[in-house]
Amino acid sequence: MAIIYKYSFAKKIIETNTIVGNNYNDVKELPQEIIYENNEIRINLNPRDVVYGLGQSTRGMNKRGGIYSSFCSDVVMHLEESPSLYGAHNFLLIHRDNPIALFFDTPSKVTFDVGFTDSNLIRITMEEWNGACFFIKGENSLDIIKEFRILIGESYLPPLYGFGYQQSRWGYKNEEDIKNVVDKYEENDIPLDAVYLDIDYMERFKDFTINSEAFPNLKDFIANLKQKGIHLIPIIDAGVKIESGYDVYEEGIKNNYFCQDENGNPFIASVWPGLVHFPDFLNSNASKWFGSHYKKLISLGLDGFWNDMNEPAIFYTPKRLEIAIKAVKETKDTLDLNVYDYWALLGNFEKLANNILDYKDMYHVVENKKLNHYDVHNLYGYNMVKGTSEYFKENYKERMFLISRSSCIGMHRYSGIWTGDNRSWWSHLELNIKMMPNLNMVGFLYSGADTGGFGSDATRELVCRWLEFSLFTPLFRNHSSIGTRNQELYNFSNPKEFSNLIKLRYALMPYLYSEYLKALKNNTLLFTPLALKYQNDECCLEIEDELIVGDSIMIAPVYKPNTTKRYVYLPEDMLLVRFRGYNDYDTKKMSKGHHFISVKLFEVLVFILPGKMLLLTEPKNSTSKLNMLDLIAIANVNPTAKYEYFLDDGKYINSEIKKYEIVANEEKTIIKL
Amino acid sequence: MAIIYKYSFAKKIIETNTIVGNNYNDVKELPQEIIYENNEIRINLNPRDVVYGLGQSTRGMNKRGGIYSSFCSDVVMHLEESPSLYGAHNFLLIHRDNPIALFFDTPSKVTFDVGFTDSNLIRITMEEWNGACFFIKGENSLDIIKEFRILIGESYLPPLYGFGYQQSRWGYKNEEDIKNVVDKYEENDIPLDAVYLDIDYMERFKDFTINSEAFPNLKDFIANLKQKGIHLIPIIDAGVKIESGYDVYEEGIKNNYFCQDENGNPFIASVWPGLVHFPDFLNSNASKWFGSHYKKLISLGLDGFWNDMNEPAIFYTPKRLEIAIKAVKETKDTLDLNVYDYWALLGNFEKLANNILDYKDMYHVVENKKLNHYDVHNLYGYNMVKGTSEYFKENYKERMFLISRSSCIGMHRYSGIWTGDNRSWWSHLELNIKMMPNLNMVGFLYSGADTGGFGSDATRELVCRWLEFSLFTPLFRNHSSIGTRNQELYNFSNPKEFSNLIKLRYALMPYLYSEYLKALKNNTLLFTPLALKYQNDECCLEIEDELIVGDSIMIAPVYKPNTTKRYVYLPEDMLLVRFRGYNDYDTKKMSKGHHFISVKLFEVLVFILPGKMLLLTEPKNSTSKLNMLDLIAIANVNPTAKYEYFLDDGKYINSEIKKYEIVANEEKTIIKL
Repeated sequence: MAIIYKYSFAKKIIETNTIVGNNYNDVKELPQEIIYENNEIRINLNPRDVVYGLGQSTRGMNKRGGIYSSFCSDVVMHLEESPSLYGAHNFLLIHRDNPIALFFDTPSKVTFDVGFTDSNLIRITMEEWNGACFFIKGENSLDIIKEFRILIGESYLPPLYGFGYQQSRWGYKNEEDIKNVVDKYEENDIPLDAVYLDIDYMERFKDFTINSEAFPNLKDFIANLKQKGIHLIPIIDAGVKIESGYDVYEEGIKNNYFCQDENGNPFIASVWPGLVHFPDFLNSNASKWFGSHYKKLISLGLDGFWNDMNEPAIFYTPKRLEIAIKAVKETKDTLDLNVYDYWALLGNFEKLANNILDYKDMYHVVENKKLNHYDVHNLYGYNMVKGTSEYFKENYKERMFLISRSSCIGMHRYSGIWTGDNRSWWSHLELNIKMMPNLNMVGFLYSGADTGGFGSDATRELVCRWLEFSLFTPLFRNHSSIGTRNQELYNFSNPKEFSNLIKLRYALMPYLYSEYLKALKNNTLLFTPLALKYQNDECCLEIEDELIVGDSIMIAPVYKPNTTKRYVYLPEDMLLVRFRGYNDYDTKKMSKGHHFISVKLFEVLVFILPGKMLLLTEPKNSTSKLNMLDLIAIANVNPTAKYEYFLDDGKYINSEIKKYEIVANEEKTIIKL
Repeated sequence: MAIIYKYSFAKKIIETNTIVGNNYNDVKELPQEIIYENNEIRINLNPRDVVYGLGQSTRGMNKRGGIYSSFCSDVVMHLEESPSLYGAHNFLLIHRDNPIALFFDTPSKVTFDVGFTDSNLIRITMEEWNGACFFIKGENSLDIIKEFRILIGESYLPPLYGFGYQQSRWGYKNEEDIKNVVDKYEENDIPLDAVYLDIDYMERFKDFTINSEAFPNLKDFIANLKQKGIHLIPIIDAGVKIESGYDVYEEGIKNNYFCQDENGNPFIASVWPGLVHFPDFLNSNASKWFGSHYKKLISLGLDGFWNDMNEPAIFYTPKRLEIAIKAVKETKDTLDLNVYDYWALLGNFEKLANNILDYKDMYHVVENKKLNHYDVHNLYGYNMVKGTSEYFKENYKERMFLISRSSCIGMHRYSGIWTGDNRSWWSHLELNIKMMPNLNMVGFLYSGADTGGFGSDATRELVCRWLEFSLFTPLFRNHSSIGTRNQELYNFSNPKEFSNLIKLRYALMPYLYSEYLKALKNNTLLFTPLALKYQNDECCLEIEDELIVGDSIMIAPVYKPNTTKRYVYLPEDMLLVRFRGYNDYDTKKMSKGHHFISVKLFEVLVFILPGKMLLLTEPKNSTSKLNMLDLIAIANVNPTAKYEYFLDDGKYINSEIKKYEIVANEEKTIIKL
């Protein structure tokens, strides 16, 4: 049992629409343990308290020892020191005997010093406090999370195909490239549900246009792919190209749908298409209007999209580029600049991208009130997605696939997120593992990283280990950047081994999809830190590289190179299932305690909890072909095992979820529903 | 027993002076397992082979899965994907049943694809092969390393004070700043042997000058510090400011001591002082001449230096800056650049620093032969240090303290290295741990990282954990950058705990210094990977986070935040010593196998091998005050323990090393020599 309290700050900039529940009590004062003075909120920590939360952020699962800013940012490199990533997730949970959580419902930047300056102190600051602080008290951290999730509303549910394996690359130029990918996956017998279209499918990067030279028969092409169970997912960027005659531009201008500068003219920035205006997504008419443009693409047969660059990312603004250029032109003695003058010159250029001063020059008009973008920055991507999603729901019965790069809490009701432009680094696989529970807490159940890494070059081993983890994440996408090593699985030696891995994902679909539905309906975590499940087990408190996935299993991924063994702590007796393929596995009873376990490349280890089970089906090469009612249960019988299987049609909005009670008395049971 | 073979390529650019031994056999052909064709050298790997080497490079101890370039580089961020760091250490050891090592004695860039493109293949490439390939075969990897170390010659031996704790920060401006540091260390009873002077002590960044406003009485100041046992260590940069009347500049010009451009004029680049010429250190006269300038500083009482920016680092060259500026000036329609044109404009500036094209524009004159710098790039820092060191040895009896940023194999005979501009990242602590054995293999015994991290902000916890490791590295320096959080130990809460840590280092000095001398004289490793010591223990093969330090002990540092426990594998029975301070510790017999061990903050765990011992002395606040003959032995008696204690005066060149045989029959023994 947990109780939510709402403390409102004196100032409120805008209705954020972050929360939907009314399961809270208004209060006039913050509780004793939350000190609010000198524009700072402080909370004392005990050395053994673990601080979860902050959704998409760098560093460990336990956020202690870092400074984080919630300010949606296009971050080229995700580093230990990066204060922000693409999302603003102002939720902190202090896990301890009397746990407490805080949520700041504000559209503005918040900075969290979580035991950085002082190990045992959380310091939270805003330039000027606005919105509300919700604080949640309860006996148990999981209760607190559930109550918070009820407050912020039910998470996005993608179509079933969103749980299939997806291949993406910035660099697919035309039908031929896509066809080649699809053919190669088919040839190598590797399941595939979706291929992404990155920016090059558009006509000169213009939203809702198609480069018809590259895709002369897109409608037919889409239809042909769909027959194979493969969906195309095009990118949609936030910025609208300034181009006379281009319908989206013309309509936006005509109706004042674009963000403004201080003089009331459309705000100008440069992104992929060159100069653009940004739709004023905070204006609900503009947001609806932009959403309605998806119709053009949907009419071609498309049913999935990724909204990108919606922090919004800015390469430069003409205003600030002019300053940089002017400084260069005025530099007289370029031959002997002193070093600080030189850096000032260089700095002008280096600071052009995503400059806060540009955000401060940009305005929204919401209900006739002009709002400075900087103050409401974190709502931008959210409202782009909201408009898109609402258009879908009003006009289509089918669930559309939708993910976004930028996000804030509340957006989880409308779409999933991918974790942005990571790199082919082992440390980013590790970050992926540690980020998932924190994303779940703030409502983002449908999420995953660019498996194998977006930037830089991946090795076969990294891709393998990353897949071994990602095959448990709802979004299961391999995406890479132009200029990096080709990362499609058939490009590595012995693709048969990759086929086995991906087929295991498809075999596990009954369990993974059921657990997703369960987490969504029950407001629980899909990825649970051990410390939250085993609250009295001191050993679990610091474990960040093992996760409970759903209700039945624990995983302990390998995230270091040149490693075929790892330590695994079992908080209770479990059944180890060592998968070499979906129908090639061993089981072994393992006792509570510390183990040093062999995990060869392409082996996937699953630990089934006592009395729990895993459900598998015969894998197919597309989720559309899976039989989700013909199952095999692998159970840790103790003396029996039970499972509540959730299933819907995977296709329509508000489709009914059927629940099946499954009981197994043997380790392996064949089940026909 | 190991045997070295030398295979010479047809081309030789210059005498590198890398090797000094004649313990090799010339051969006309490479052995069967080294395939040399199509300008590529290939070696097949077995899945369980471990590849060590490459000295200062990123990623793990086992280099498999990466591409590395030996090309001395000023790298702002050390990332998993960074191919180069500051050193060029062309040594690879394939550890397996029939181990083999390779060393490429060349001044040019070499690229090592160690199982990156193909997991089981090493591919080594040069633009044009030159110099020689030494290959070493033996029964045992440690024999191979020893033979290689004999080939490349005895490592640098610093004065004893170089083993004390050192405080540095880019940002100390004047005497008062330094005095404040020294006073605060004294007040907080934290031992200290050296404080560094970064670039601001110079008069406008001119080598061998002193900013006399900031340091009006430097000679007295130095003398006063020395009375406390504290040494000042100023930085010396490679570039010489172009300034009429500045003696170093004038002499260099007069004697043609500077590197040239293609027309024979002194090559111009910009670094800290603004425009500079680079001394042509490959010209032995120029190198000697530059070395002789240290006399000015030594006459002030200085006896330690760090040679920096000697890759050489280049901020920009006027030639290339002009191109960047011209492109900006010629940009007509800056208001609507397409994104690729914009990036080209920006790229011109971004590519200014350390541009290979600049290196290709620069020339050396060696024995009247004009050599392109690019071809001999990796010898530059080395020859700067060589000149410095040779001047010292010819003119002073005392051992001078000397470290360098850039290096290549061979330079280890003349100075130590610090591992460059790392950051306050946990992953850089981990990198530090994994890099040490590989540095030792190529002769760099005197080394260490900027403890706590140079760039970005450190937490108390990170500094503590880093110190817990660094107190075993010969170079034990805390260094941080201007603009980052103050990292001097007294700036964190409860400095008493830091005092305990640093005192433990001083207490351990007999062991650490003796083991250093031993590794130097015996051509052994100070930091040994477990896999090399316990060759038949399969468990050791993948362990990268435990190290054998010297002859007697194993360490297992904590390198993750929010952690107070870790797994430790013991390859044999050991005695755990849990230090909370030098005279506050517990011991515990531990058996071979896997352990999950508590390691609280400020605890230092040492595992003593059977029949081995640790030697401690009463710590003082400077190494100069230590009594290295009044010792306490903590021994893992089995049934006795033996130790060969190496000691010299810690001060003079070629001072005699005394060896003492110490035997202990009890866990704790008081020893007076």
